[in-house]
Amino acid sequence: MWQEIDQQLKRTFEFTDFIAAFGFMAKVALVAEKMNHHPAWFNVYNRVEISLTTHDAGNTITEKDRELAQAIDLLYQ
Amino acid sequence: MWQEIDQQLKRTFEFTDFIAAFGFMAKVALVAEKMNHHPAWFNVYNRVEISLTTHDAGNTITEKDRELAQAIDLLYQ
Amino acid sequence: MWQEIDQQLKRTFEFTDFIAAFGFMAKVALVAEKMNHHPAWFNVYNRVEISLTTHDAGNTITEKDRELAQAIDLLYQ
Amino acid sequence: MWQEIDQQLKRTFEFTDFIAAFGFMAKVALVAEKMNHHPAWFNVYNRVEISLTTHDAGNTITEKDRELAQAIDLLYQ
Repeated sequence: MWQEIDQQLKRTFEFTDFIAAFGFMAKVALVAEKMNHHPAWFNVYNRVEISLTTHDAGNTITEKDRELAQAIDLLYQ
Repeated sequence: MWQEIDQQLKRTFEFTDFIAAFGFMAKVALVAEKMNHHPAWFNVYNRVEISLTTHDAGNTITEKDRELAQAIDLLYQ
Repeated sequence: MWQEIDQQLKRTFEFTDFIAAFGFMAKVALVAEKMNHHPAWFNVYNRVEISLTTHDAGNTITEKDRELAQAIDLLYQ
Repeated sequence: MWQEIDQQLKRTFEFTDFIAAFGFMAKVALVAEKMNHHPAWFNVYNRVEISLTTHDAGNTITEKDRELAQAIDLLYQ
């Protein structure tokens, strides 16, 4: 479901409402801080759009992005 | 699952880990603030213990507590 | 500090790190849900960009946006 | 301000309201998960009571508790 666009891994997640979307964001925040790898993400109401890229690697997709993407997918289930 | 103990509605929730527990707490926080009715709650790792009572009603269980309990149950599913 | 651009109120907030940025986002989330008026917002690391507009009013800036902007400013202080 | 009681480091934090208290909790959650060392904590409205102990060391206070206590103090400032 993640797409590679412009050297970024991108996926959009949808929820029933803002409460569910923000609960998901809180979990993603914990995982991202733990991995010391942070998403660029956008939210409006029940929609969360996440973009992953590695700045230290010249804004390309690296193994760290793939690991975070996988961890986020597990949180979404 | 909620039990009435000492004029409080109490229930314990268990999760796979702290991340899941805190994601749940974030959702409960949003609902509680919206209802302007706040839980007394305790967390350690994957466990969240919630107690509901109404201070304005002399620390008894009121309809507000039952509504919040029901809303929390929906967030847990 | 809020700017009106394309019928949206926009402001960017900067913090020392992701932890501080997300703590701020958690507070904004509580206020937004309580007001039942949600931001379009973007975060990467220590930066939070917030856009406010009222969908029900044809995506124009209304009093609800100005109230939320003011509440967000108080949370930032 | 932290007190050693029953082999636990304990401190109570007070805020203006639930919103401020929960914003603080979100920051503590991020730090705790990152350190893989989680508090036992209680919240009601604007008050957050934190207890730190190390289960793996037979529920005694260790260096990990002192580090987390120090990190929490920085978040509170």
